[in-house]
Formats: sequence, C-alpha cells, structure tokens
Amino acid sequence: MEKKDYQADRRKFLAGMGMAGAAVLAAPAINAVASQSKVKWDEEHEIVIIGSGFTGLAAAIEAKKLGATDIVVYDKMPYFGGNSTYNGGLFAVPASPLQQEKGVKDSPEIMADDQVKAGRGVAYKDLLLHVAKHANEALQMTLDAGSEYLPYLQQLGGHSVPRTYQTIEACGAGIIRPLVNQCRKLGIKLVTRAKFDSLVFDDKGTVVGAKMMMGHYFGRDVEGTAVNVRSKRGVLIATGGFARNVGLRSAQDPTLTEEVPSTNPPSATGEALLEMFRVGAVPVHMAYIQTGPWASPDEDGFGYVSNYSIYNFAHSISVNVKTGKRFMNEIADRKTRADAQLALRKDDGSPLPPITITSYEHAKEHPTMEKVLKYDVGWKFDTVEELAAHFDVPLEPLKNQIEEYNGYVKSGVDEQFGKPMGKAEGKYIHAPFVVVRNWPKVHYCQGGAQIDVHARVIDSNTWKAIPGLYAGGEVTGGMHGVSRLGSCSIPDCMVMGMTAARTMMKS
Amino acid sequence: MEKKDYQADRRKFLAGMGMAGAAVLAAPAINAVASQSKVKWDEEHEIVIIGSGFTGLAAAIEAKKLGATDIVVYDKMPYFGGNSTYNGGLFAVPASPLQQEKGVKDSPEIMADDQVKAGRGVAYKDLLLHVAKHANEALQMTLDAGSEYLPYLQQLGGHSVPRTYQTIEACGAGIIRPLVNQCRKLGIKLVTRAKFDSLVFDDKGTVVGAKMMMGHYFGRDVEGTAVNVRSKRGVLIATGGFARNVGLRSAQDPTLTEEVPSTNPPSATGEALLEMFRVGAVPVHMAYIQTGPWASPDEDGFGYVSNYSIYNFAHSISVNVKTGKRFMNEIADRKTRADAQLALRKDDGSPLPPITITSYEHAKEHPTMEKVLKYDVGWKFDTVEELAAHFDVPLEPLKNQIEEYNGYVKSGVDEQFGKPMGKAEGKYIHAPFVVVRNWPKVHYCQGGAQIDVHARVIDSNTWKAIPGLYAGGEVTGGMHGVSRLGSCSIPDCMVMGMTAARTMMKS
Repeated sequence: MEKKDYQADRRKFLAGMGMAGAAVLAAPAINAVASQSKVKWDEEHEIVIIGSGFTGLAAAIEAKKLGATDIVVYDKMPYFGGNSTYNGGLFAVPASPLQQEKGVKDSPEIMADDQVKAGRGVAYKDLLLHVAKHANEALQMTLDAGSEYLPYLQQLGGHSVPRTYQTIEACGAGIIRPLVNQCRKLGIKLVTRAKFDSLVFDDKGTVVGAKMMMGHYFGRDVEGTAVNVRSKRGVLIATGGFARNVGLRSAQDPTLTEEVPSTNPPSATGEALLEMFRVGAVPVHMAYIQTGPWASPDEDGFGYVSNYSIYNFAHSISVNVKTGKRFMNEIADRKTRADAQLALRKDDGSPLPPITITSYEHAKEHPTMEKVLKYDVGWKFDTVEELAAHFDVPLEPLKNQIEEYNGYVKSGVDEQFGKPMGKAEGKYIHAPFVVVRNWPKVHYCQGGAQIDVHARVIDSNTWKAIPGLYAGGEVTGGMHGVSRLGSCSIPDCMVMGMTAARTMMKS
Repeated sequence: MEKKDYQADRRKFLAGMGMAGAAVLAAPAINAVASQSKVKWDEEHEIVIIGSGFTGLAAAIEAKKLGATDIVVYDKMPYFGGNSTYNGGLFAVPASPLQQEKGVKDSPEIMADDQVKAGRGVAYKDLLLHVAKHANEALQMTLDAGSEYLPYLQQLGGHSVPRTYQTIEACGAGIIRPLVNQCRKLGIKLVTRAKFDSLVFDDKGTVVGAKMMMGHYFGRDVEGTAVNVRSKRGVLIATGGFARNVGLRSAQDPTLTEEVPSTNPPSATGEALLEMFRVGAVPVHMAYIQTGPWASPDEDGFGYVSNYSIYNFAHSISVNVKTGKRFMNEIADRKTRADAQLALRKDDGSPLPPITITSYEHAKEHPTMEKVLKYDVGWKFDTVEELAAHFDVPLEPLKNQIEEYNGYVKSGVDEQFGKPMGKAEGKYIHAPFVVVRNWPKVHYCQGGAQIDVHARVIDSNTWKAIPGLYAGGEVTGGMHGVSRLGSCSIPDCMVMGMTAARTMMKS
C-alpha cells in the first residue's frame, strides 16, 4: 500500500492557504488539538502522565529512578488508582523468586506461549515476551514500595504452571497504595480531579503537551477549567479500558447493553483512547471484550466471589444446576469458561448461573471465604442433600458427579474436560461444602491503541511512532489478543509503564 | 458515562485563544481538515460520493431518481468499481421474484437471522433487517440498468434457503458495468484518478466538502493536485475495505502478513476509513477479517476457483488429502470452513490445502468449470484411482468416504458434519470427477466505521450522527459481526448506498 508523509502534506496545505505555521490547529468533531506556537502554557513538567493506575505510577517511579526531576501524574477522579484499585491483586511473574523457592520450572517464553494460546493466535508475541522478561523488575518495584504478597503461588486458568502472586489484601489496592506513597516520598506530583481533554502538538507533529480540565467532577457535569500543560519529554496515556463506556462496548457487542454488569468502576470510560484515535492511533482488537467467568450475579462489581472463585476453581467443580453435571474445565482460559457459562440457560432463554462447589476444608485456606460467607454471596452446606435442595439440583446425578470427579483427583486425569489436576492433588470434594454462583461480567478490554515494545503509539498513516506520545496498559490493544489470561494485566501495566519511562528518558 | 458537546467546547477553546472562527483547522498527525470559512472552493456539487463500487453507484442513481441534479462520483483508480468488480456477483435477496417462482419460502427476518447466527451474535440486526427489507429494490435497480442473472438460485454456506442470484458473468462487473452506464445516461459526473484526502467541516461541525487529490496515480507516488470540493448535501464515503492494507490487517491479526494472499485488488487500502476515525467515527469490529474458504492456492486473487467452489460445494465433498476423509460441512458459514481448512497442516506445520471433489456431471452445469479446467486450476479425472494418485490421497479411505457420503445423499442426512443435503438431492459423487484445491484468502473486512440505519456516521464523542457525513458498504462495520455470509455484500452495499442518498436528499 502507499504511504505518504501527512505531516509534510499538512504543512503544504497550510502554506497553500497562506497560513504556514498556522495558529490554532483544531478539527471540528475533534477535541481541541493545538499547536505549541500559539498555546499559552499554564504549566510545564518534564514528564506528563495521564492516569494513576499501575501503568502511570510505575512510569512515574521509573522516570524518577532514571533521573527525571519534575513528574506529574493526573487522574480525573477524586482518588488515585482507577480500575487498578478494583483489580484482584493477581500478578503473574515467570521465573520468579517464589517459583525458584517452590521448584516451579518457568520462563518468559513459557508464559508468553500460554498467553498467545489464550489470545487465539492474534496476540502480539513481541509485547508479551517483553513484559514477561521484565515482570520480575516490576514485582521488585512493588516490593520496594511495600506491597505484601501471600506466601504461595496460584495457577490460574490457562496458565501452564503456578506463577501468580497475590497481594495479601487480595486486591490491586495492595499495590496502588504503596506505589502512591512511594510517589509522594519521591516528590512526584499527584493531581486528582484533572481530566485529560486533548493533546497539543508542535509544528513538526510531536506531542508536546496536553490540555487538562482541572477541578473536574466526574459524573456531575462539571468539566473543570482548561489548563495547558507542557511536557518536555512527551505525554503518557495510561487511562485504562472502556468497560463502562456502554456506547463503545455495545458498538462492538450489541449484547453488552447498560444492563450487563461490569467489575470496573464507572470511570472506565475510555475518552483518552478515543482522543488517540482522533490523532491517528490504530484501533486494534476493539471487539475483544473479556467477561470474567469467576464473577457472581449475587453482588455488584468485582466483589468478593471473583477472587474467591479464582483461588478455588482449581480444586472445585462447577455444576449446571439443571443437570447436576460439570460443564467445563474449571481452569480453562477466561473466554472458554465465560462462553460455557453463557450457554447455560433456562428453557425460556434466561440466564441459569452455575454453582461452584468447594470443600470447606480447602476454601477456608483463602482469606476471601470469610467475606463470601459474611456478605451472603456464598453459602456453607453440611451435606450434599442440603446443597442440592437449596439450588434445586438433581441429587443423584450430583452425587455421581462428585464421586466421578474424586476419581479424577485420585488418578490425576480429568476424563470429562481435561482439566490439569496438578493443583487439585489430594483435594477431594467432600462435605461440608462452600458454594457460590458464577456469571460473567464485563471485566477487561483487550482492544485499544496499537503500541510498540517501546510503549510508543503507532500512527495509522505512517506506521511509525507518533513522536512524544506514549501509552501502556489497558488503553492499548494487541498484546492479549482475543482473551487475556488472568493475572497478566498487572505485569502488562507495570512493565509498559516502566518501559514508557525508559523510552521517554532516552528521548 | 459522561457526554459533552465537543463542538461547543472547541469553539470555546478557540475563543480562549483569541481565534474565534479560526481559519484553517487542522491537526498534526491528521490529514488537513479545513473549515469552510477560509476554504477556497474549487468545485461545488449537490452530492459528493467517494468510491464507485456498488455503494457509490447505487447512491448516485438513487439520488438522481429523488431529484438531485448535480452528483459526482470519485474513484482514486483509473477505472470504476474497485473491489466490487472483482466480487463474485452473488446477490442474496429474500422474498425475491425468483424465490416466488420456485416456491422458496423466505423473508427478510429469516435472512437476517441467518446473518446474525453467522455473525456470532454481535451483528447489528437493525442494519441487517433494513438491508434485507430493501434488497428487492436494489435488485430491481440493477435489472433496470441491464444486469442479467442466471435463471436459478444458489444456496450458499450459512443460508437456510436458496436465495442467491448470480450475474451471468459470475462477477460483480456484471452489475458495475450496467450501473456505470446508467450513471452516464443519467448525467452523473464520474471522475477517476481522484483520491479522497480529507473532510472539510463548517464552523458548526457539519461536513460540507472534501479535499480531493486529482490526477492521482495509485502506487506510483503521484498524489495529485489538491482540489476543494464543496457539497451541498454532504459527503458519502463508499470506499470499501482494507484487505490490502497490510499494516492495518496485520495489526488486527499478526498472521495476515504481506505473504497472505487476498481476493481484493491492491486498491483496497482503507485510507478513507482511517480519515473517518480521525474525525471521531467509532471503530467497530476491526479485528473481524474474513478469509474466503472457496479460494484456491493455485491462482491469484478471487480467480475462477472461488465462484466454481461456491456453486459446487453443496454437491461436493472436501477431503483432507492426508486421510482421504471429509473434515467439514462444505456449506457451513465462511469462518467455520476457513478455520477447518486452516487447521489442515503437514507434519512440519506448513499448509496442506484440501481437495474438493465434484462429479463432472454436476460441475459442468456452472459456467466456471470450463474456465477452471482451461486455466489449469482444476483437473478432471476419469477414475478415483487416478485422482488419488494425483493428490497422493490414501485410496481405500477415499473410496469409503465417497461411498459413505453417497449414503447421505440417498438418506438426505449428513451423519458426519450435519450438512443440509437439500441442494445435493440425487447428486451422487461419481466418476468422472472435477477436483480443485482450496485455501483461504483475505476476502472481506467486517470492521469499519459505525453507521445507523440512515447511513449516517456515528461520532464517538456524542454518539450522534456527524452531520453531513455518510458511509455505506465495506468501509462500515457492525452489520455482519464476526463473519459475513456469502452474497450478502451486494445487498448491503446497494441498499446502504440507496439509503444514504435518501437521507441526503431529505437533509
């Protein structure tokens, strides 16, 4: 295909209009995009970061480490962390210290291969390998900041080995809070209620700043006051996904209407992503929207059942309440499981959430069990009869299923669904039981703007990087393909944030 | 999510810069986007149409019918029709005259339901129904212009009934040529070597024209001379898909590299689509790129085998040359079949194209058989032994497969793959045989800019139509979801072109 230098072309066009070096550059139906030559800068910083989740905070700390002296992180909300705080605190790291301690053989290549498989062959292996190779550094950054992790690894769905750390809080706040404190200690400027509006370019097409709306009140129709912020080393967009932008997600999947719940906070609306498209970023994999198969229809948001299920699936059975039988490999990748769950329907077509049955003996090993029982989104049963009666499951098929499955625990081979039984060794299903219900929720947007391994945003006209514009984390697309594996968002965000800082500091 | 009036915001921003009503509005990394107030118009037309395929020509003729007096159609190539000319000339029409004549029961609802199923539940049913309801009008437009169709209907993969017309030429040129002649007769201005560059907005954010590059030489680095064309009723983008934009398609699927062939001409590069994203159009389903399971590895482009196979699959068997056995329902939807074909590999992982075996007696009923044999991309065999030896297929399994399949022809039930056997009634597989090889090629981009049933382009900021901007056909996304059914592109393009004209003439 043909390529041309649109930047040069633009200048020619302006010149032809007698407007060389033209003043304010903006396009209707486009946010105000201004040229530096006539912009009155209100502020100036060395590094400007939009978004205070894993990506933004990791970038800020890394930039500081590399010698940046004036770093600012903006967040549109009245608090920091965005969706990262709501995240489950699960962090996949290949060849980690805990794997070495436990004798688990793993490598960045093995992890990337697991992810490519879940991504249905269209994941960007170069990005996955880059992240996997640097995940240990990212883990170390969180440890240095004071994050604490459970002393064992989990093997989540689609991962070929146990490689997932989890914060003791079982949520991303266990990383965000220490990173925010670390930023404060390092003198990094953190600003809330500061909403990104648009990018500012210089006459050569380099991003040199951003127009921000200060004093923004999310959801209250108070946009805030425009402030033009100059950045010496460019702008990092680290604003997360669009799970809560109903227009954009239902454009991709008309079934994801307002009524479909999400694990994300309301702020996950993706305006900065749309602005990147308006300056020529390549939309990638926008239709690949992940629903979490571990969520519960009995609570809002990510809730307690999600982490509970993620931990317990390996030694639990998920059962179709209509038949009393299993219907999936409980640790298959997310898309495989969510699709299997969504196929369970009452005769009238309405959802029929399956139940996940765990022995109390094993469920109690994870701190989330107490929460699940306390908030009445999971229930304990002393006998299989009680359990079957409660959920209206046919008793005999259920008993047979439990017996059959326990045979697989013994033999180490799941003859029903090929579930890897390594983590279920010796973990028979027996009374008393803890039971939750599961139903998918919109969890993660694999799609976004295309970046390269240097966290630079690619231009759809030139297929080169847009100078001065960086992005990382869920706002980007390509890395995970059709389906992201669990616990792979934190390494993605943290490493690409650190990568963006490294690229910016070299620029 | 929050919404705001970006257009008002833009004006405020300009005012704040002392630039109210600012002159040239353009953004770096964005094509020149100009405001009418300072644009020197070189030309003015009532209706401006970019692209001369099915969509553009149908829009032009419909606009003329509705009273437009000054219509222009631009094409960047030295000829008209683009990829529509290369198309197979297959035209699905529900409740058509030929169906009524043959006693086939069908309706727009049945056709739309077939398409939603192929689209894996994410197709836009409102658009599909709109097209299906108006498909007869579109067919009539081609008949009025002089198109001729074969006197029987075909039942293509994924369609529940025979509903597909085919031009006697077995290609889209059988529609494009008459429509071009019709346009000339009607006094519609047709211009080649005129490449769309960018949109021109007025100060209220309405599209009022386009910047065109006249005298463009595709692929020869001659962009042409800029001409600003004013349009009184807006601009229709009808520029087709991006199957030949390797950057954009491989961004969605890294396996679709330069080496993967396509049925489309080199001009299918999607620049106008990218320009629409830069003015805020919603990218929809960009990752859903269809490969055609009827293409052949033995010829370039759409070739002869494609139409030959589309016609013959219903009464043929596709066989894995390694096993001598069938491996798919030969008339499943395109994605199902392409995925099944792509899974056939030699031991070293390289492609192992299957063979499709048809009785000579039935193959000769379709005009493409002669071409296939003449150009040595299909071969005739007098015995199954010759056939097996030629392709190195194990003889006994192949003989058994043919016998088994002929049992299904007799019983009317395909016990292997559930193929609907209605169109295969009495059509046994027997010598002499005609055989082709199949392997998928990049054929169609389901993704594009979001439109509504009025062919208006939706704005990702406001979720309302961008005033004055219309789009139809393959440049748009959403209608077909994950996988478009064969013969559904012509009705889509023709009807949405006609729809755009109707909307523009009401504006």
